[in-house]
Amino acid sequence: MFPPAMAGYDRAITIFSPEGKIYQVEYAGEAVKRGWPTVGVKCRSGVVLVAEKRKISALFDPSSLEKIYLVDEHVAASPSGLLADARILIDYARDVALSHRFIYDEPIDIELLTKAVCNLKQQYTQFGGTRPFGVALLVAGVDRHGARLFQTDPSGVYIGYFATAIGADSGTISEFLEKNYKFDLGMGECVELAVKALASAVEITESGNIEVAYATVEEKKMKKMTQEEVAALVAKLPKKS
Amino acid sequence: MFPPAMAGYDRAITIFSPEGKIYQVEYAGEAVKRGWPTVGVKCRSGVVLVAEKRKISALFDPSSLEKIYLVDEHVAASPSGLLADARILIDYARDVALSHRFIYDEPIDIELLTKAVCNLKQQYTQFGGTRPFGVALLVAGVDRHGARLFQTDPSGVYIGYFATAIGADSGTISEFLEKNYKFDLGMGECVELAVKALASAVEITESGNIEVAYATVEEKKMKKMTQEEVAALVAKLPKKS
Amino acid sequence: MFPPAMAGYDRAITIFSPEGKIYQVEYAGEAVKRGWPTVGVKCRSGVVLVAEKRKISALFDPSSLEKIYLVDEHVAASPSGLLADARILIDYARDVALSHRFIYDEPIDIELLTKAVCNLKQQYTQFGGTRPFGVALLVAGVDRHGARLFQTDPSGVYIGYFATAIGADSGTISEFLEKNYKFDLGMGECVELAVKALASAVEITESGNIEVAYATVEEKKMKKMTQEEVAALVAKLPKKS
Amino acid sequence: MFPPAMAGYDRAITIFSPEGKIYQVEYAGEAVKRGWPTVGVKCRSGVVLVAEKRKISALFDPSSLEKIYLVDEHVAASPSGLLADARILIDYARDVALSHRFIYDEPIDIELLTKAVCNLKQQYTQFGGTRPFGVALLVAGVDRHGARLFQTDPSGVYIGYFATAIGADSGTISEFLEKNYKFDLGMGECVELAVKALASAVEITESGNIEVAYATVEEKKMKKMTQEEVAALVAKLPKKS
Amino acid sequence: MFPPAMAGYDRAITIFSPEGKIYQVEYAGEAVKRGWPTVGVKCRSGVVLVAEKRKISALFDPSSLEKIYLVDEHVAASPSGLLADARILIDYARDVALSHRFIYDEPIDIELLTKAVCNLKQQYTQFGGTRPFGVALLVAGVDRHGARLFQTDPSGVYIGYFATAIGADSGTISEFLEKNYKFDLGMGECVELAVKALASAVEITESGNIEVAYATVEEKKMKKMTQEEVAALVAKLPKKS
Amino acid sequence: MFPPAMAGYDRAITIFSPEGKIYQVEYAGEAVKRGWPTVGVKCRSGVVLVAEKRKISALFDPSSLEKIYLVDEHVAASPSGLLADARILIDYARDVALSHRFIYDEPIDIELLTKAVCNLKQQYTQFGGTRPFGVALLVAGVDRHGARLFQTDPSGVYIGYFATAIGADSGTISEFLEKNYKFDLGMGECVELAVKALASAVEITESGNIEVAYATVEEKKMKKMTQEEVAALVAKLPKKS
Amino acid sequence: MFPPAMAGYDRAITIFSPEGKIYQVEYAGEAVKRGWPTVGVKCRSGVVLVAEKRKISALFDPSSLEKIYLVDEHVAASPSGLLADARILIDYARDVALSHRFIYDEPIDIELLTKAVCNLKQQYTQFGGTRPFGVALLVAGVDRHGARLFQTDPSGVYIGYFATAIGADSGTISEFLEKNYKFDLGMGECVELAVKALASAVEITESGNIEVAYATVEEKKMKKMTQEEVAALVAKLPKKS
Repeated sequence: MFPPAMAGYDRAITIFSPEGKIYQVEYAGEAVKRGWPTVGVKCRSGVVLVAEKRKISALFDPSSLEKIYLVDEHVAASPSGLLADARILIDYARDVALSHRFIYDEPIDIELLTKAVCNLKQQYTQFGGTRPFGVALLVAGVDRHGARLFQTDPSGVYIGYFATAIGADSGTISEFLEKNYKFDLGMGECVELAVKALASAVEITESGNIEVAYATVEEKKMKKMTQEEVAALVAKLPKKS
Repeated sequence: MFPPAMAGYDRAITIFSPEGKIYQVEYAGEAVKRGWPTVGVKCRSGVVLVAEKRKISALFDPSSLEKIYLVDEHVAASPSGLLADARILIDYARDVALSHRFIYDEPIDIELLTKAVCNLKQQYTQFGGTRPFGVALLVAGVDRHGARLFQTDPSGVYIGYFATAIGADSGTISEFLEKNYKFDLGMGECVELAVKALASAVEITESGNIEVAYATVEEKKMKKMTQEEVAALVAKLPKKS
Repeated sequence: MFPPAMAGYDRAITIFSPEGKIYQVEYAGEAVKRGWPTVGVKCRSGVVLVAEKRKISALFDPSSLEKIYLVDEHVAASPSGLLADARILIDYARDVALSHRFIYDEPIDIELLTKAVCNLKQQYTQFGGTRPFGVALLVAGVDRHGARLFQTDPSGVYIGYFATAIGADSGTISEFLEKNYKFDLGMGECVELAVKALASAVEITESGNIEVAYATVEEKKMKKMTQEEVAALVAKLPKKS
Repeated sequence: MFPPAMAGYDRAITIFSPEGKIYQVEYAGEAVKRGWPTVGVKCRSGVVLVAEKRKISALFDPSSLEKIYLVDEHVAASPSGLLADARILIDYARDVALSHRFIYDEPIDIELLTKAVCNLKQQYTQFGGTRPFGVALLVAGVDRHGARLFQTDPSGVYIGYFATAIGADSGTISEFLEKNYKFDLGMGECVELAVKALASAVEITESGNIEVAYATVEEKKMKKMTQEEVAALVAKLPKKS
Repeated sequence: MFPPAMAGYDRAITIFSPEGKIYQVEYAGEAVKRGWPTVGVKCRSGVVLVAEKRKISALFDPSSLEKIYLVDEHVAASPSGLLADARILIDYARDVALSHRFIYDEPIDIELLTKAVCNLKQQYTQFGGTRPFGVALLVAGVDRHGARLFQTDPSGVYIGYFATAIGADSGTISEFLEKNYKFDLGMGECVELAVKALASAVEITESGNIEVAYATVEEKKMKKMTQEEVAALVAKLPKKS
Repeated sequence: MFPPAMAGYDRAITIFSPEGKIYQVEYAGEAVKRGWPTVGVKCRSGVVLVAEKRKISALFDPSSLEKIYLVDEHVAASPSGLLADARILIDYARDVALSHRFIYDEPIDIELLTKAVCNLKQQYTQFGGTRPFGVALLVAGVDRHGARLFQTDPSGVYIGYFATAIGADSGTISEFLEKNYKFDLGMGECVELAVKALASAVEITESGNIEVAYATVEEKKMKKMTQEEVAALVAKLPKKS
Repeated sequence: MFPPAMAGYDRAITIFSPEGKIYQVEYAGEAVKRGWPTVGVKCRSGVVLVAEKRKISALFDPSSLEKIYLVDEHVAASPSGLLADARILIDYARDVALSHRFIYDEPIDIELLTKAVCNLKQQYTQFGGTRPFGVALLVAGVDRHGARLFQTDPSGVYIGYFATAIGADSGTISEFLEKNYKFDLGMGECVELAVKALASAVEITESGNIEVAYATVEEKKMKKMTQEEVAALVAKLPKKS
């Protein structure tokens, strides 16, 4: 499956292949593609994250596992990929945001926060003796520039989107978003769009296999919906037939 | 058994394979699967751990070997996998719990404790020059949020469960739990369920080849049963025929 | 594609091949060749950078991604290659420029700035345990010596040009420049030449898939054009037919 | 003898094989199996260690070589495996025991001592740049919990036994012990059982090719028999015919 | 082209081959042989360096690239090989010369300066984790001992010459020098000899594809010719026919 | 000569082979076996070392090379193997002995001295990035316990002997010793036995190709014989015919 | 030329081969054998070093290159092998000699000096991450013990000689010395013997392709002959016919 000539390039950590690729980073990308998907949508009224949380087993306690993490009052992040790696990055992001508040007495700009996390990621792609982080993040929130939505990848690149998805089936979800996205949406419509986009690839159940967090431009507060709110939201979805 | 093309990926420590997996972590998981099983069950009234302790030899002194370790007054942990690795993690957990009591004068939240242990585990999967810990842990106890039960794996992920098992035959035991689990159980019923679940895969003898520890939501104290209590408990089990 | 006898030379980081080449540096050059192109032109009246910014997806937010970075008031830089690596180098350049202002109370000479960045790049080609930066930069601006335009590559070499291009299709663009370049150009003509040069290899749309920054010898200020200015500029281009 | 596909796993130090084993630890175990055997027996009245000390050559000075080391007044240890490694561990154990006396003014608990030694062993199995200790130890003594007997292996695991053996022919000796062991023995009977057990696999001569050390529960002092005492003991053994 | 049996010796950095050679140093020498040539000539009246500076492209700005660097008032150096490596060595030489002036208040002896640079080079051939500098230097100037001319190579060896050349075609140029060199030359004749020697292998154009620097024994100042002076010098050369 | 399957185990420094051996230590033992032999004999009256010192060439200055080194007044050591390694160990032993005298104001016990040297040796067999010492030592002297004679090997093991030999032909010499050794010897007889033992494998010439050092139990001083004393001794030997 | 089975042993630095050899040291010895030869002779009246200095090219400046280095007033050293390595060792020797004078106010003993240099050499044969020094040295001089002559090799061994040679053709030269050496020589005869010995393998020209340095037992000063003295000496040699 892997031709022998290629076999050597991925053993030594973070070196270039003859085509100028860093295979360890590409392979870390595979870990992301196998993660549970998260959708992010930003519109005139705010920004929303919707993440799938699969039922790992019948006796799994969903309340013990987060797929959307509040990083600070005004910003949240949702990972796809290796969960243990994600936890490290989320903790790092929280430290950065907290330090910023402590030093400057203001919420951190979301791009600055995203850049700090991505600079950490980049270092793990350049130095030997370690591996890249096997995780992508959607970072979403509202700051003085308005609603923000960034997607980061294992290489340390981050890019802003109006609407995007990471993880398994992100291709299908992105196609749905491209067909249905409008910027002029109220917060409720925006949430609905994100949920429908996720539903285009994943079966959403009323018992709550998704997490939803949103922030409006007015309030600038990221809020995670309760399980009841999510259930109500899912109940309103048109049934697939 | 292992095709030559794959052989290269697991030599260098903690790097990604082309599919985005970290083989050293997967192989550490094999060490877990060969460990003696532990069952954990949490219910309305409390939480229980039941662990098998095999008779290594006829002259082995069972009192010298623990499979369930009290970490703090309100929390215990039981490993499957490499026992020497487990000891290191348990000692680390005890340090973390003790420091928390010392600094904040309160018992540590069990999720916070589990996360600290798992952050250590994650680091051993990302940096070169070391190997992952070859051990999974069930962490169980009662804190201000009620009964808690977490399962950790060598990658540093932890997930909450109502009932779960690690180690050899954990698949069989989990199936038993899925069929028989109810949340509304008294402490006695809960213990009995856990023991029966273990008995579904392992022959339990009256001479005490298991350890049992439990905590009730009221008391918030993790208690290890004496050998006599265990013997009495086992005696009440329906005999297999 | 690569004969087996050669296969060994690129695994160990930053060593010489029998022909005296450092393969890791050559491969990093491949990452540059796959980057989006940037054009730089310097003339009597000033200097200009024009960079392509591709529409990654329909819902990508172009305002979130820069291809031309202001480093200081009088100097800008535009990378081709790995974006995460570029960000690190740009931040480094900004630090160097800011320190110079702080210590000497004057804008940094652009060659001195370029040299500082390239010395960092060189170190990453000589020491083990790391990989070269997979990025080339065009550094342009106006200082007390007049308009300056430097091209850097992953090996840490920098060379001054009257007009040059980096990234994908840089060969085609350079040919266009060699045919059409004159030193005696006004600022407007200079910008136009750079845009046309890029257009010789890349389709430029009015919706703004390029960034433009320029500085005149008189003002010594690097200015990024707004999206409206760019649109007006593109509208004036002769249509391809 | 070793299939090529397996050959790679043991070169890089302390990594997991696909079956979840750490080959370097397993191979260190081979060094133990080739060591001279030691027997340990604990009973109601105390604990005893009996170790073979082979006559390396006709002119070897047996008084210069110990197989049983007093670690502290109340505890001794006997290794099988690489003698130079053993010496390092014994010195470490003596340091630990001495520090404990110095700080707490009491003899160290034997399990605590054993754990300290095994934690050191475990570290040498997890970090790169070193190899595991190629030695097993029997640690025996009497503390406030009574007679204690622990067996440690190169992985850093320790387990308590009523009677056990390490080194060459430990299988044969263990079988003998399983057939003949009783807990209710006086100190003399206990010593005799241990010597007979060793004699089941090794020819014991009156000239003193064994060392014997024992401690009674009353005295809590580990005593090494003199060569004369050993000779007398051996003389009483039934002759093999 | 390289027999497989030899392939292994050049991977590990700076080790000996069975013939007592250090391949990495030899390969670094190949990088030197592919560099643009520099000629150095010393005579009774002074010393001169003449270096080729190729026109990399039609729009390359020759004023931005030096091939001869003034190190201190009385000494200059010209490299062949990797330009980024050369820059590091030149900066190092400048530091050494400046420190010497600062501490001793006199110009540094040119051999002492050359030795300092070569000691740095030697270290990069002996220690792992780095590669040799891929650059040779001609160091020329006038100090209290008179005119000096040294050639250094990647191994850290330096040797004095009356006339020599490094880089591409250095063999051809050296042959020319051996046929035509005389010690009793005035400064003008000395410069002319060096230019002609370079011209024996490289086509020199009036537009200035060479750099020239010289110092007389009387003045002890190294001077770089202006482009006009170079053009006048080249104009006087006999035309090849 | 070496089957390919084995070839891998000796490259990585100080790891175990599947049979539990440390090949680097075994190979260091080969360096010992190729060294010039040394004989040591201890008896009731004292201890003696006799070492061969080969005439490397006709113009070699034998007075410049020692094969027996005085470590302290009461103890000497003689190496076989790599001479440069031996020098390092002898210097280390002298430091240890001197420090002991300085701190405790008494001669160091010879076993303690030997153990210190062997602990150093052991470390070089366990940690990566270095190789074992390729040298064995005979350490001989008289301390408060009487005459002492220890043999150390590259693994760091030391063992006491009544009489032993290291280096080339040590097997032949040991056989001679086993046949002829008696404990009840005067100092003169003891020296004679050691010289004859060496002569059993090596041709001893009157011109002094051996070194002899001895200490009596009464005096406790290690003395090296002068060349004249050695010549007289050799002259008394029965001639081989 | 090199059988594949051997190929692996020389890659990892400074490890033992199965025969107990350290290949890197042996290969460094090859670098020595390819160096220009040096002869050393010591006699009743003093000691002399004679070294060949080849004319590298017609325009090479012989005054710029030393083959015999004065280390201190009373001692000189001459290397064969890698010249850059030699320079490092000579500088180290000068530091050691100077420190000794500074601390003890007396010239350093020549054996002590030689040992210091060789201890440095030994370290480079035992630790990873570096290679041995590829150079042998003859160290000659006069101290309070009289005339001294030591030969060192890359392994760190040093041995005293009455007369010896290192570098290319050292075998031929040594044969000449063995046939013609006498201890009872005046200084002039001693120098003549050394020159003739070198001439037995190398053509010596009157233009000075050798260096000569000598010290008499009375004066205890090492003196390098001027080019004129050397020319006179060579003129007196019998011509080869």
